[in-house]
Amino acid sequence: MSDGLNMSRRIRRTPYTDNVQEAGVRGFTVVNHMLLPKAYQPSVEEDYWHLREHVQLWDVSCQRQVQVTGPDAKALIQLMTPRDISRMCYNDCLYIPIIDAQGGMINDPVLIKLNDDKYWLSIADSDVLLYAKGIAYGKGFDVDLCEPDVFPLAIQGPKSEALLCRLFGNHIADISFFKYGWISFRGTKQLIARSGYSRQGGFEIYLKGAHLGPALWQTIWEAGQDFNITPGCPNLIERIEGGLFSYGNEMTSQNNPFEVMLGKYCVIDGSIDYIGLSALQKIAASGSTREIRGILFDGGPCPTCSIPWPVTREGQEIGTITSAIWSPRLERNVGLAIIENAEGNTGKPIEVKRPDATVSGSVSYLPFA
Amino acid sequence: MSDGLNMSRRIRRTPYTDNVQEAGVRGFTVVNHMLLPKAYQPSVEEDYWHLREHVQLWDVSCQRQVQVTGPDAKALIQLMTPRDISRMCYNDCLYIPIIDAQGGMINDPVLIKLNDDKYWLSIADSDVLLYAKGIAYGKGFDVDLCEPDVFPLAIQGPKSEALLCRLFGNHIADISFFKYGWISFRGTKQLIARSGYSRQGGFEIYLKGAHLGPALWQTIWEAGQDFNITPGCPNLIERIEGGLFSYGNEMTSQNNPFEVMLGKYCVIDGSIDYIGLSALQKIAASGSTREIRGILFDGGPCPTCSIPWPVTREGQEIGTITSAIWSPRLERNVGLAIIENAEGNTGKPIEVKRPDATVSGSVSYLPFA
Repeated sequence: MSDGLNMSRRIRRTPYTDNVQEAGVRGFTVVNHMLLPKAYQPSVEEDYWHLREHVQLWDVSCQRQVQVTGPDAKALIQLMTPRDISRMCYNDCLYIPIIDAQGGMINDPVLIKLNDDKYWLSIADSDVLLYAKGIAYGKGFDVDLCEPDVFPLAIQGPKSEALLCRLFGNHIADISFFKYGWISFRGTKQLIARSGYSRQGGFEIYLKGAHLGPALWQTIWEAGQDFNITPGCPNLIERIEGGLFSYGNEMTSQNNPFEVMLGKYCVIDGSIDYIGLSALQKIAASGSTREIRGILFDGGPCPTCSIPWPVTREGQEIGTITSAIWSPRLERNVGLAIIENAEGNTGKPIEVKRPDATVSGSVSYLPFA
Repeated sequence: MSDGLNMSRRIRRTPYTDNVQEAGVRGFTVVNHMLLPKAYQPSVEEDYWHLREHVQLWDVSCQRQVQVTGPDAKALIQLMTPRDISRMCYNDCLYIPIIDAQGGMINDPVLIKLNDDKYWLSIADSDVLLYAKGIAYGKGFDVDLCEPDVFPLAIQGPKSEALLCRLFGNHIADISFFKYGWISFRGTKQLIARSGYSRQGGFEIYLKGAHLGPALWQTIWEAGQDFNITPGCPNLIERIEGGLFSYGNEMTSQNNPFEVMLGKYCVIDGSIDYIGLSALQKIAASGSTREIRGILFDGGPCPTCSIPWPVTREGQEIGTITSAIWSPRLERNVGLAIIENAEGNTGKPIEVKRPDATVSGSVSYLPFA
């Protein structure tokens, strides 16, 4: 038995886990009951600089799909989200909040429309499938719900497009941001989207067929040698700098969509109906001013943030940092925090209670400059 | 950054995590988005022998509670389970299957009745709260649903009762198996049940108030010195020998309750209605003979089972092992597997395809003798 994470069937391996281990993965976390690699290089900083310049291959199978099919598929999904999906097109990938009756965030998946009665919700870390099953039962919807045999593989970084065009054809370059197209792989047709959990550009292949996983990894890996490819994973420095939020970290069911910059996706004028509509209307009418911001702060490289750290202004707590790390580019610590009176506090000096010290900082818009 | 599991707010610490780390925990797993200690002693075997003889303190906070309150609390819970809860008493802890419309297992929690309109579901590893929220919305039930500020701490092993009687009073001895009582701790009243994830006897304190966690741990720890207490955690050898199943390992939504010995809790005569009733009736009528059994097998201490291992009889696959480990007491490997024609195959010779070898074995009733 080794230190760290213990393995069992419950903590599911992915079709790429063998490849990932061969590639020298140094740690995992667990998302949706599945392994997500968390480190390869000797340091997160090396991963960070590489991601900004080259191309990386990420096993993001833990972005599980909730497949909704049937005549009531669209009605069920609309009930789960405040975002209007009525004019969604094929080839659209839509970032949607899913909320509960109190307006609390349940998940923030990407919704993919495959056809009029078939959708995938590509989810963050909570069992959206169970929420959907409960609603579908309660409302008597005519839908089928399952987790299909689909395992996303991300290709991230500025050289992603060149690599994938060489491998799969130049039509890859025509796929717009948050749209999807198709590639051929070993006689199968596979969905590929211009998306991913970084701000460095890239794609996600929604591989259908776990048995094809090792071959897909290997194919991209080999073609990627000319592009200085490395194995990678969501990079904490890059995602915080870029203002990418993580369900369970920046938001839980105690947060509403307005607090995490998802207000722009929430239709609250009554033109569509969904779970939590009246809760969101009340929150909007209350004039709540809590919103997520970046925090720049001092004191040299900070430890891991596993319990939120208080942010105070003039002695008053105005929020807590939920993710933080040293930015080698900005040469300061960067963090994410939901802040009271966010507009009024932006740009202002604050203090951060790190576990090891109380230090000075300031509130910044996101993404960090 | 260390090898193994990476920490973040999303992988929640518990009120006891500081104590657990001071006590020298050597690894964690993740259950319900929360840390569960997985090893302390140099070997699982040392933990095993100690658990059978003395007393251990386990941080099982990851057994999260889904609190259901309100006039429709009982109706909602009855809809989620095939077990009849109508005659449930205060002080009862009821082990219940929760299933979906296809009869698939969603979870196997312990249900605790606090009063006529207040219940806790003490859950295994899936977001039952989301399932409950979906059903409650869809059916328009008048309930409040939340994850309360409750963090179970288990005291397991044959000396548990003596230790807890000394600490909290002799009324502890009067609590029957799967019943609960109350203790006083620092001016609060806390629920204590005779239950836990071992066959060695013991109790679980459902501590209300995270801030009391370190003091509760420390109080039991100090009083436990006379009883040779150690920190512990669910022990893989002990639970497999004892026939205790793990959601995500022995069963998933692809399994029905009959397959995992929960048929005795399923009322299918139509006297109660619940989600999945007609599915269970169909399965029962089909004469399905798949059921979980123990597997004894050769080849010396086996590796960790993270991908199910095929079990064959006369060349035909009859099931897969989902958890397995070397039993130092039986001096053989023990595993758990859902087996086709379970009655017909019990006692019969089989072969197990371990990752490192194909070896001989036999099918056994549970718990292992």
